[in-house]
Amino acid sequence: MEKLKETTITSEKVYDGALLRVRKDSVRLPDGKTSVREYIRHPGAVALIPWLPDGKLLLIRQFRYPLKRVFIELPAGKIDPGENPEQTGIRELEEETGYRAGRLLYLSSIHPCIGYSDEVIHLYEAFDLQRSQRCPDEHEFMEIFSLSLDEALRLIEKGEITDVKTLAGIYAAAHRKGRS
Amino acid sequence: MEKLKETTITSEKVYDGALLRVRKDSVRLPDGKTSVREYIRHPGAVALIPWLPDGKLLLIRQFRYPLKRVFIELPAGKIDPGENPEQTGIRELEEETGYRAGRLLYLSSIHPCIGYSDEVIHLYEAFDLQRSQRCPDEHEFMEIFSLSLDEALRLIEKGEITDVKTLAGIYAAAHRKGRS
Repeated sequence: MEKLKETTITSEKVYDGALLRVRKDSVRLPDGKTSVREYIRHPGAVALIPWLPDGKLLLIRQFRYPLKRVFIELPAGKIDPGENPEQTGIRELEEETGYRAGRLLYLSSIHPCIGYSDEVIHLYEAFDLQRSQRCPDEHEFMEIFSLSLDEALRLIEKGEITDVKTLAGIYAAAHRKGRS
Repeated sequence: MEKLKETTITSEKVYDGALLRVRKDSVRLPDGKTSVREYIRHPGAVALIPWLPDGKLLLIRQFRYPLKRVFIELPAGKIDPGENPEQTGIRELEEETGYRAGRLLYLSSIHPCIGYSDEVIHLYEAFDLQRSQRCPDEHEFMEIFSLSLDEALRLIEKGEITDVKTLAGIYAAAHRKGRS
């Protein structure tokens, strides 16, 4: 793919906020001309497809400020410095839902925003869930609820699940179970 | 969902670049405390699932600078000021592939990045494709190629398609055709 490749000429940090880090690079295009690329640097994230003992999926409802509404989502979160994705998965599931997973199964990795972010999200199914001693994180305002896989697939069809990590995670889990 | 809602106290433009616009808002949390939210303002986008006369899907390969590699993608692009999503779809398909669609079918809308962007991507299947007089845009470095729906689904399974709009669009089209 050498003929599609863009190479870096200069790279500059243009915004370093509480949450977002933005870079602006000058690049050499395949035809030798130059252009500008602006993008978010992201540490990567993990999303969980958690199976409760009764066979249902554990999901959350969370208000997402950029879109000013509540979304149905899989539990998920950013990878902290020094963590591997499995550690992030166990930690975020416990913080957000109060459940501890006994076992994770890696499904796939997805790229939500390739035009302007280097974010990758690793998807894991979570099994052997047990109520943890720890309460869900008080700083996270969310509701947890459960649904069967078929109900979750119907919510995608009806356009009630539109968050891509949730959509991709549910499809990937359905595929592994031979249901899609 | 009133008890999950965050309300705006102040809102400030903190970066206004060539491509990215970043805002930083102070918000009131459900418990009355305050917090900060940083996010990208995005005009919205359209992605096309284009069906060639031979029944194959038209896809593109494009270098994505934030991740420094080539991705397999559906043709897609941002909504220009004054455009409706159908107009964006027709225009972007022609610019990127040199094909003009006779008919679009709306499938669904997805949110790729709800944590830090207000972007929405509208997915449309594109039918009755004809080679346009216009050549693909010279400023876009991409390769076009075609695949059957089954081959595209296999590339998702194998982890070779990870871009979320492409993954969601292929799944949605497969579902409409009763194949998933």
